[in-house]
Amino acid sequence: MTRPDVLEHALTRPGRSITELKEFLRFPSVSSQPGHARDVRRCARWLAEHLRRIGLPDVRVIPTRRHPIVYASWCGAPGRPSVLIYGHYDVQPPEPLAEWRTAPFEPVVRGGSIYARGASDDKGQLFTHIKAIEAYLHTAGRLPVNVRLLFEGEEEIGSPNLLGFVKRNQDLLSCDTAVISDTAMPAEDRPALIFGLRGGLSLEMEVTGPAHDLHSGSFGGAIHNPLQVLCEILAGLHDPDGRVAIPGFYDSVRPVSATARERTAEAAPMDEEVLLNARAPRGWGEPGYTLHERVTIRPALTINGLCGGHCGPGGKGIIPARAIAKLSFRLVPDQDPHHVERLLRQTLSRRTPPTVGVSLRRLSAAFPVVLDRRHPVFRAAARAYEAGFGASPAFLRSGGTIPVVHAFQTILGIPTALVGFGLPDDRIHSPNEHFRLRHLFQGIATSIELLSQLGEFDETRTMRWKRNQADEQVQFRAGSP
Amino acid sequence: MTRPDVLEHALTRPGRSITELKEFLRFPSVSSQPGHARDVRRCARWLAEHLRRIGLPDVRVIPTRRHPIVYASWCGAPGRPSVLIYGHYDVQPPEPLAEWRTAPFEPVVRGGSIYARGASDDKGQLFTHIKAIEAYLHTAGRLPVNVRLLFEGEEEIGSPNLLGFVKRNQDLLSCDTAVISDTAMPAEDRPALIFGLRGGLSLEMEVTGPAHDLHSGSFGGAIHNPLQVLCEILAGLHDPDGRVAIPGFYDSVRPVSATARERTAEAAPMDEEVLLNARAPRGWGEPGYTLHERVTIRPALTINGLCGGHCGPGGKGIIPARAIAKLSFRLVPDQDPHHVERLLRQTLSRRTPPTVGVSLRRLSAAFPVVLDRRHPVFRAAARAYEAGFGASPAFLRSGGTIPVVHAFQTILGIPTALVGFGLPDDRIHSPNEHFRLRHLFQGIATSIELLSQLGEFDETRTMRWKRNQADEQVQFRAGSP
Repeated sequence: MTRPDVLEHALTRPGRSITELKEFLRFPSVSSQPGHARDVRRCARWLAEHLRRIGLPDVRVIPTRRHPIVYASWCGAPGRPSVLIYGHYDVQPPEPLAEWRTAPFEPVVRGGSIYARGASDDKGQLFTHIKAIEAYLHTAGRLPVNVRLLFEGEEEIGSPNLLGFVKRNQDLLSCDTAVISDTAMPAEDRPALIFGLRGGLSLEMEVTGPAHDLHSGSFGGAIHNPLQVLCEILAGLHDPDGRVAIPGFYDSVRPVSATARERTAEAAPMDEEVLLNARAPRGWGEPGYTLHERVTIRPALTINGLCGGHCGPGGKGIIPARAIAKLSFRLVPDQDPHHVERLLRQTLSRRTPPTVGVSLRRLSAAFPVVLDRRHPVFRAAARAYEAGFGASPAFLRSGGTIPVVHAFQTILGIPTALVGFGLPDDRIHSPNEHFRLRHLFQGIATSIELLSQLGEFDETRTMRWKRNQADEQVQFRAGSP
Repeated sequence: MTRPDVLEHALTRPGRSITELKEFLRFPSVSSQPGHARDVRRCARWLAEHLRRIGLPDVRVIPTRRHPIVYASWCGAPGRPSVLIYGHYDVQPPEPLAEWRTAPFEPVVRGGSIYARGASDDKGQLFTHIKAIEAYLHTAGRLPVNVRLLFEGEEEIGSPNLLGFVKRNQDLLSCDTAVISDTAMPAEDRPALIFGLRGGLSLEMEVTGPAHDLHSGSFGGAIHNPLQVLCEILAGLHDPDGRVAIPGFYDSVRPVSATARERTAEAAPMDEEVLLNARAPRGWGEPGYTLHERVTIRPALTINGLCGGHCGPGGKGIIPARAIAKLSFRLVPDQDPHHVERLLRQTLSRRTPPTVGVSLRRLSAAFPVVLDRRHPVFRAAARAYEAGFGASPAFLRSGGTIPVVHAFQTILGIPTALVGFGLPDDRIHSPNEHFRLRHLFQGIATSIELLSQLGEFDETRTMRWKRNQADEQVQFRAGSP
């Protein structure tokens, strides 16, 4: 049971919370754009300073090869469990800029939501835990559990340096469980505990043809066009049904039992809901699965970007010298991103005509995860959602990717409670990203209750978690989720 | 026979000619980019002023709906033929800028060539005629023929306003023949008289999917990706052999006789030469034809540009809301660009899946032409080439498109001598465009001799041209070139 004064402290100053979140959102901490590297660093420093201000004693900005990690801890509850709260303060590029109603890094509140790049993914969600911790420290002067905060600046580029950091700092990060708020609920009144995430493999493919752009009058019809080859190769990566047409791609996909699918179907968004959230006229994809299943228990390949030749106004009579595509796979257990990359390379080497060169560069790779939903941390999280949102959460898998969850599972040996406060139409990764203010405050309340629930476990119980965890590992290898 | 003092005047001041050409090349007269509209106008005014300075009495800058036409005439040779000299002072966009060794609009001379956007296409080539006229006016005080100069600022966007201008001003433009230098010779010592040009049809295709970019984790696998649809549609527009896979596309292609093909093969570039000029490792395209034939007597479809989604550094996990492709057809007699557009629209409407929208916008359209190479103007041009380059020209068709040639043929009823001074590796439409200085001066000498040759025809002979022309029209309808 949460102390009422903690909740009151957290929720009676909404204006201050919004002002602080706006400060956080104002940093264009776009991790993928080298021009924003300084902004990412400034954002990390602001975040660290903010954590110090709310009373955390041990706050560090830890440099990596690219963007820094912000780490903080409070270990004033010996004998209580330790919780690792992860979030990311980097954001997706804001482009296309012309489609934003208000500037992406000038946050505004409109219709009960705060609009800015990163509002939902993940600054706004991450902020709920900061406000919960602040409320405890400013009222009780202590937290019900030990906490370690790990906020990274590279999630949107596939966490290239975080996994090494986790490996090298297992003692620093030693905890009983992790908590992450970086996922979505199916709808406003339907919270969800996410027990599975798709993995990711992000690649850049380049097709090179003639040494320089050619006049399409002088050479059109006689020289193979890199753009055309790129289209042919990409078109060939799906069969007409919408399945990925890379031999071997589905071989290691772990089947999901009919029972598990039925159980999920009760709580999962219907096709109509998925389409409404996508604002798309109709669905597409692999036959035999609902739209929700296609984005959770089935893998996918998406072309994220394609460019080559002339894209300005009017026409330009050229055969471009090269063309580039950005691709990303979303993978499910037990697909291994490195193996999928090898399969793609084999397919490309078979399908590349002798007229052009094709090269592939990996941008990031992340393993898929499925967590054992019977783990006690999920019960604590479910009770927290009930307190924050007045509803029991559904257990669902998500289509997204959070690379660190697999690292927590395999390196630290701990589960992660994916307690998301976003909504499917928050337009994350898209123009006009926003986060419901209601969810900001319900999220804070949920976090406060979650810390309280976790605090009620004693060390003996914690040990039982660890034993459970060992069982879980066995189950992971043996069965289906 | 050209008067020696005319040649001497033209060729003994190379430094001045180069300085003037550099001034002309410094204008970024990029017709397709609205941001350069003022530069196009400034370039037109400079050109007009230059024509006045060399002594032409009647110079006009004629506004159109977009970029102005520069017109000038000298009609001081009554009873002599009239020659319409056409060129274009607009240029292609200079992008990609990073690939230029020196800035595209800061002309420099390097290794015997002048480097700048427009150096070969078409400012440098157009300039040869201006220098030839100047040499006559400054030495003899007169020209051997009447001339009308027509320099447009919209060739690179498909001459949208010139055809209407020609239609409305048939009296102003009334001439016995046209002369254009806007094509290439097969190699340095091998001039070519071009007797055929491919037509063009330039289009922008847009595929639209969801109302805004979607997170590819949340939706990848369930929502059709406009980029993927675009790739599938574009890949389907060629069959695996390299033929255009639009039903009916080849129906109106006029066959070329085996004799005509053999005759051309003797003078045409070999496959190896085409590849050398393209700096491409090997050829591609429609089976049964040489590379030169594929770009001259056969039509082609080229993707000139493709863009959608994320093209910046790193990855971005999105399904983009839309994707755009720039396409252009090169057409041969008797293909009609408007009919080809209808065929494409039919094909697209059959191949567009119900998950997306596809729209098509025409950017420009031009008819293909074949000229009767027995016309006497070609004999005059051949003698001019002999004088300027010391070699008889080959008779070849070109793969390029000059929209106005069809208008001269059908509206004014006159043939065009396509007396090109470019080379296949001038990198027109590409970074590091350049023009050989040797060809600039040999071009001036050729133009001087051509005007002289044309001046030797008397009015009786001119009348015979016109009768020939009537025959030609009949032949055009009936036979093959």
